[in-house]
Amino acid sequence: MNQMENALLCHKDWNGKLETTAKSKVNSREDLAIAYTPGVAEPCKVIAQDKDAAYTYTWKANTVAVVSDGSAVLGLGNIGPYAAMPVMEGKCVLFKEFGNVNAVPICLDTQDTEEIIAAVKNIAPGFGGINLEDISAPRCFEIEQRLKEMLDIPVFHDDQHGTAIVVLAGIINALRVTGKKKEECRVVVNGAGSAGIAITKLLLTYGFTNVIMCDKEGIICKDYPNLNWMQKEMTKITNLADERGTLADALKDADIFVGVSAPNIVTSEMVASMHKDAILFAMANPVPEIMPDVAKAAGARIVGTGRSDFPNQINNVIAFPGIFKGALEGRAKQITEEMKLAAAEALAALVDDDKLNEDFIIPEAFDPRVAEVVSKAVKEHI
Amino acid sequence: MNQMENALLCHKDWNGKLETTAKSKVNSREDLAIAYTPGVAEPCKVIAQDKDAAYTYTWKANTVAVVSDGSAVLGLGNIGPYAAMPVMEGKCVLFKEFGNVNAVPICLDTQDTEEIIAAVKNIAPGFGGINLEDISAPRCFEIEQRLKEMLDIPVFHDDQHGTAIVVLAGIINALRVTGKKKEECRVVVNGAGSAGIAITKLLLTYGFTNVIMCDKEGIICKDYPNLNWMQKEMTKITNLADERGTLADALKDADIFVGVSAPNIVTSEMVASMHKDAILFAMANPVPEIMPDVAKAAGARIVGTGRSDFPNQINNVIAFPGIFKGALEGRAKQITEEMKLAAAEALAALVDDDKLNEDFIIPEAFDPRVAEVVSKAVKEHI
Repeated sequence: MNQMENALLCHKDWNGKLETTAKSKVNSREDLAIAYTPGVAEPCKVIAQDKDAAYTYTWKANTVAVVSDGSAVLGLGNIGPYAAMPVMEGKCVLFKEFGNVNAVPICLDTQDTEEIIAAVKNIAPGFGGINLEDISAPRCFEIEQRLKEMLDIPVFHDDQHGTAIVVLAGIINALRVTGKKKEECRVVVNGAGSAGIAITKLLLTYGFTNVIMCDKEGIICKDYPNLNWMQKEMTKITNLADERGTLADALKDADIFVGVSAPNIVTSEMVASMHKDAILFAMANPVPEIMPDVAKAAGARIVGTGRSDFPNQINNVIAFPGIFKGALEGRAKQITEEMKLAAAEALAALVDDDKLNEDFIIPEAFDPRVAEVVSKAVKEHI
Repeated sequence: MNQMENALLCHKDWNGKLETTAKSKVNSREDLAIAYTPGVAEPCKVIAQDKDAAYTYTWKANTVAVVSDGSAVLGLGNIGPYAAMPVMEGKCVLFKEFGNVNAVPICLDTQDTEEIIAAVKNIAPGFGGINLEDISAPRCFEIEQRLKEMLDIPVFHDDQHGTAIVVLAGIINALRVTGKKKEECRVVVNGAGSAGIAITKLLLTYGFTNVIMCDKEGIICKDYPNLNWMQKEMTKITNLADERGTLADALKDADIFVGVSAPNIVTSEMVASMHKDAILFAMANPVPEIMPDVAKAAGARIVGTGRSDFPNQINNVIAFPGIFKGALEGRAKQITEEMKLAAAEALAALVDDDKLNEDFIIPEAFDPRVAEVVSKAVKEHI
C-alpha cells in the first residue's frame, strides 16, 4: 500500500480527525446542575453585563474558527466546501497539536464575498479568532480586510500571512548564512496570488527595497494585462524601475527567488544568471519550480521547498499555531505587521549560529520550542 | 459557598466547558504527511467526486452545530450571543456525554431571521445536523421550517421538539398509571410559546383530540388578541368547541395540565376542579406553576416539573442526544413526526411495569440505556 492509499484508509478509520470533548464531565445530577441548568445561568448573567467576560467563562478564550469556502484548496483548486473539509479538519488538528488551541472547521456553502463576510461576522461571538483558509484571490483580500475592520478578534488568512512569515524567517537566516544585506538584494517573487502578494508585502515591510513580482506573462509592471485590484496596488511598491520582460530577465543578477507558482519553470540557466550565493525558495507543491539538486548544481547556495523530504521545508505549521496562541493569550484584537515581523525573527533566531548552515535555515516543525517562541513574540507586540 | 457561586467558579476554572481534540495524533513527519499534506488530498479528491463521502472521511458523520441567537435563553430572556455561550457549550457537553455526538456552539451576532437562515445554511456543509436552541418565537418557527426545506441534514429546534418528546413520554406513562385514555382526555397547555405549541402539536399527532391552549389572556380562541401566525394556526386544531374564558375555566374537568408558563399561576382550587386522577406537568423554571405538594394535596395524582429535586423531572437531556445520535447514525435527512413519536414511546417503555408509579413515570437522565433506545427508535423510522 502506498502513502496515498494509506492516507485514504486512515481518514476512513478516523471518520473525522477531530472531536469535541467535554472538560466539564457530567456524571451526576450535581454535575448537571453546575454545568447546565440552573448553575449555567450565573456565567450567562455576568457575560450579559460585560461581554468580555466570555473570555473568562467560555471557550472563546482559546478557540479559533478555520473558515474556508473551498475555492482554492491545496493544489486541488476550487473543490468546494465538502471536499475542503479534510484539509480544514487537518488544520484544526495542527492548531491543537502544535499550539494547544481549539479549532473548529467551518466550510461555507457559498463563494460570494458578501455572504462569506456575513457568515463569518455572524458566527464570530463564540470564537476568539478567525483563520481564513484556502479562499481564492482576489476575494480573499477584500474578505480579510473587511472582516478585520468589522470584528474585534484577530482575522488571519494563513495562506497569505503564515506563508509570508515562514518565508521571511527563512530569508533572514539565508542572509545570515550568505552575508547578503537586505537593502542590497534583488528579490524576485514568482506567482502573484495571495501567498506571493503577502510574501512581497512582508519582505518590503521587513526592509527589502528591490522586489520584482512575476506571473505567467513575466514581470509585473503597470502595463501587465488583467491585473486584479490588489495586483495593481503591488505595481506601486514593487518593480520601481518599471522593468519589462520574462522571469528569466527578472532573475538576471537576482539574489533571491521566491516561487509560489508552478513546477519546473526555473531552469539551470536562470539560476546561473543570478548573483553569487543565490537563495531560492521553490515552493510549488508537490513539484517545485526547480529541484534542489539542479539548482545547487547551477550555483545556488541555499534552496528551500515546500516538501518534507528536502532540507529547508517552508511549512506554515511553524507559524500559525504560535501566532494564534499568542494572540489569544494576549487577547490581541488584530494580528499586526509588527507581530508578523516579530514572529519571523523569533523563528529565525531559533536556529543557533552553530547549527545554522545552507541546509538548516528553518526550525523543525517538531521542535517543541517553536509555538512557544512565536507566541511570545506575538504577545510582546500587542 | 452556595451552588450559584460554585457554578460561577467552576465555569471560570473550566474556561470553556468544551475543547477540540485530535483523533489523528501528529507526532512525526509521517503523521503530518498522512493527516495533512500531501495525504489529505486523497479524501478531498474522493469527496469532490461524491459529496456524501464527507460522511466517511470527515467528522460530519457525527457532529452537530448548536445554534442560537441568544434571544430566548433559559429563563434569562434576550441576553444576546455572548451571554448565551455558556448554555450552548453546556448543551454541547451534554451531546457528547450522553450521546457521544460531537457538538459545536455557534452563537450568532444577529437576530434577523434572514441572516440567521443564511448563516446556518452557509455553515451546514461541515455538520451532520443543526440543533437550534433558545431562539424566540415566532421567529424560531420560520427559521426551522425554512432551514428544513433548504438543507439535507436534520434541523431540530430542541426547545420545541425535545421538550415535546419528553412531555409526551411522561404523559404516555401517566396514562398507564391512571388508566386514562388519550381520546377521552381534556388537555390544557398553558403557555403558547415555542415549547407549548410544539407540545400541543405532538400530543395531537399522538392521538389526543381535545386540547385547549391558554396564554396570559386565558383560553386561546379565534378572537384572542395579538396572536402570531403560528398561534393562529393553532386555533384551527385546538379548542375545537371554541371555548372562551380563563385558565381556571379551561382547567375545569381537565385531565391533564401542561404548563410552560409562569410561577404559581395554578391554584389548589383549579386542581380540585380537574377530573379525578389529574396529571399536572408544571414546568416553569425554577418555580413551577404549582408546587408538587400543593397540587397533590388538592387532588392531583401525578405531578412533574422541570426540577431535579422533585420526582418526574421533565428534562430534554433524555431526548436530544439520542435523537441526533440515531439521526446521524442512520443518516436521516430530517427528524420526522414518526421519529418523535417513536422516541417518546421508547422513553416511556423504558419504565417497566413493576417500577412505574405516580412518582416514576420518566426514565432517569443517567439511565445508561436512554440514548441507546431513543437512537434505535429514531433509526427504525428513517
